[in-house]
Amino acid sequence: MTMNIKEKVIEIGRNARNAANILANISSDIKNRALLQMADEMVRQTGHLVSENAKDLDYAGKKGLSSAMIDRLTLDEAAIKEVANGLREVAVLPDPVGKITSMWRRPNNLLIGRMRIPLGVVGIIYESRPNVTADAAALCLKSGNAIVLRGGSEAINSNVAIVKILQEVLRNVGIPEDAIQIIPVTDRAAVGVMLQLEEYIDIIIPRGGEELIRAVVEQSKIPVIKHYKGVCHVFVDVNADLDMAQSICINAKTQRPGVCNAMETLLVHKDIAEKFLPVMAEKFRDAGVVLKGCKETRTILPDIEGATEDDWYEEYLDLILSVRVVEGIDEAMAHIEKYGSLHTESIITRDYNNSQRFLNEVNSSSVLVNASTRFSDGFEFGLGAEIGISTTKLHAFGPMGLEELTTTKFIVYGDGQIRT
Amino acid sequence: MTMNIKEKVIEIGRNARNAANILANISSDIKNRALLQMADEMVRQTGHLVSENAKDLDYAGKKGLSSAMIDRLTLDEAAIKEVANGLREVAVLPDPVGKITSMWRRPNNLLIGRMRIPLGVVGIIYESRPNVTADAAALCLKSGNAIVLRGGSEAINSNVAIVKILQEVLRNVGIPEDAIQIIPVTDRAAVGVMLQLEEYIDIIIPRGGEELIRAVVEQSKIPVIKHYKGVCHVFVDVNADLDMAQSICINAKTQRPGVCNAMETLLVHKDIAEKFLPVMAEKFRDAGVVLKGCKETRTILPDIEGATEDDWYEEYLDLILSVRVVEGIDEAMAHIEKYGSLHTESIITRDYNNSQRFLNEVNSSSVLVNASTRFSDGFEFGLGAEIGISTTKLHAFGPMGLEELTTTKFIVYGDGQIRT
Repeated sequence: MTMNIKEKVIEIGRNARNAANILANISSDIKNRALLQMADEMVRQTGHLVSENAKDLDYAGKKGLSSAMIDRLTLDEAAIKEVANGLREVAVLPDPVGKITSMWRRPNNLLIGRMRIPLGVVGIIYESRPNVTADAAALCLKSGNAIVLRGGSEAINSNVAIVKILQEVLRNVGIPEDAIQIIPVTDRAAVGVMLQLEEYIDIIIPRGGEELIRAVVEQSKIPVIKHYKGVCHVFVDVNADLDMAQSICINAKTQRPGVCNAMETLLVHKDIAEKFLPVMAEKFRDAGVVLKGCKETRTILPDIEGATEDDWYEEYLDLILSVRVVEGIDEAMAHIEKYGSLHTESIITRDYNNSQRFLNEVNSSSVLVNASTRFSDGFEFGLGAEIGISTTKLHAFGPMGLEELTTTKFIVYGDGQIRT
Repeated sequence: MTMNIKEKVIEIGRNARNAANILANISSDIKNRALLQMADEMVRQTGHLVSENAKDLDYAGKKGLSSAMIDRLTLDEAAIKEVANGLREVAVLPDPVGKITSMWRRPNNLLIGRMRIPLGVVGIIYESRPNVTADAAALCLKSGNAIVLRGGSEAINSNVAIVKILQEVLRNVGIPEDAIQIIPVTDRAAVGVMLQLEEYIDIIIPRGGEELIRAVVEQSKIPVIKHYKGVCHVFVDVNADLDMAQSICINAKTQRPGVCNAMETLLVHKDIAEKFLPVMAEKFRDAGVVLKGCKETRTILPDIEGATEDDWYEEYLDLILSVRVVEGIDEAMAHIEKYGSLHTESIITRDYNNSQRFLNEVNSSSVLVNASTRFSDGFEFGLGAEIGISTTKLHAFGPMGLEELTTTKFIVYGDGQIRT
């Protein structure tokens, strides 16, 4: 790393902090105007964005990237329209900043409240999708936070072009353009510098595979909000509605198998396993899902492969599912506690007590009754947006929306009170 | 460090995690019964506690500790009664665990809520006061968290004796006794081991001087909730009620100068400085406060010492106060932003717009109008208790009560919903 890169990244951090101090007090009206103009400007400059994206696609082709990766990298007219619509949706979300979350009066007549304020500067480290650049910038802008973006090297031209457009709009509406910045170099060492800037960056949100996230956590001096993986479970209880159980299991596994809230392990009560598993296995076979079972599962489904100890910890992100027969809800919850990732778990049951025990006792960030694990997502939960998912309990646990990009300060109205 | 100490600390962490998993689902009734019994038992075993405390006092005498430190260390009958009353007060506080903070229905009929759950295992690292042992253990127990205590070596016999009593009660009421544990050795290396146990401890709260806190942050792999210092400001605006300003300034500086929410810097509007400062200076002189002033202050109060650049950053924790004359609210807020510690600031004013600007724009964790900075405290704010104060924005900002020892998980009631 040349000294230049280090200095450049430090300068970006310092400028972000200065911009954040101003942005914290900019009105919702102006932030919303910026978001709507950004949407228009992205669409107006479609030609330019497509041609900058072509440079990235060209390089990706030469590097022999997979077609799935090239797909994620592509910014065509339709993708740009979608990004623009995302910006417009953020504009209509309620602004969390300045909201008084509660207020109470003390016996000495002090009136005390908690007011939402931005966290300050958010660092986002992500992989190839250039749409994240605009999405994340919009959520941070709306919540009054400055953002420092560090995208994948494959998307550098696209990302820089998007940020330039966003900054033009910031200048137009009178917001410091350093409120949205990107690390403009692909040098890996720049990430290392960024992760040391605890003075300037308040929180790091990595978005990508487990390997990326572990590398970020390992290096960072700044708090990291993250989930490593989603080993999500569905437990089919003895008296479940079996039609509902089938529909939810198929949905949880196959509706989008490559995402973190897809089911990875199915737990089945022993007293319905003989009835449920053969039907379910057929449906999974039709859907192209490969099963791996515990010993009891394989006495019922002798054709499937055995699950190893490692399988219970595995996030397949694919049409593969491990299946285990359990004694009942206690063994199901013990399995989830041992092998789970604190992400999302669902029980399918008609038993009132078991539904309540599952909701109360399972320690994961999202716990569902009679619904697909695929719902654990900021949009589906009604948070309006999602900046990430946390499976650690400090600050935020589960899907994070705009409110999770803020904290609260105490405000106190007095009339001369002193402490005695 | 012998291998034994390392293994012992790791075992304490592992046992705490196991206890926390059980404690998370223990009812308020049982936790409250434990707290009340702990209070009774502490009083009943006063003789034993006093004699264990005598060993610490004896050693402290031989080591030549200051009388202030010996005072803090002493557990006599009165101090033990006070601790017991503190435990009884925690018993009557509302239990945050299981509280549904909000609940909403989605268009697809999913009913989604956020439920408060404990953080898990809390590590407390503190200095000489043995009362912290019982206070912190009570707050963690009430909020469903296991606690690992690491007290100062001066208080080791007192702390171990207190924890033994608390554990006896836990056993009696059927709570795992590992829910409250103390590192029973004074070897400094034990802290280093404790701070690496991210698998077992969820949060570290250091309580003590800036030096202790910096050492903990430097070593810890676990998130640390802390404030380094409190450089608290009072800004006396041009149209302040000057009687109120005097009473608040005296209270904020002298009511207890050695604590973090005492005023350290007084900012005075230039247009009232000539009227306000001479009267105020006399009152400060009577109260034994030494002033250090900016150039403008010294033209009005020529007898006082000059304040250096370092003085503006200083937390005196003593009867010393730096004084600066400012142009107005903008310069006051700029001073606070540059030199402040995000702890507590107060404006004394009769101007509506300035009161609102100060509350909205000052970036500190507690911002007051017309009240003493000494109120920024969990009890005074009405949180019922205080486990610490945070001046970093993640998770908690400002005084932390029982709720700040919890997080929320999402709970979802469905009736067969799948995602399309």
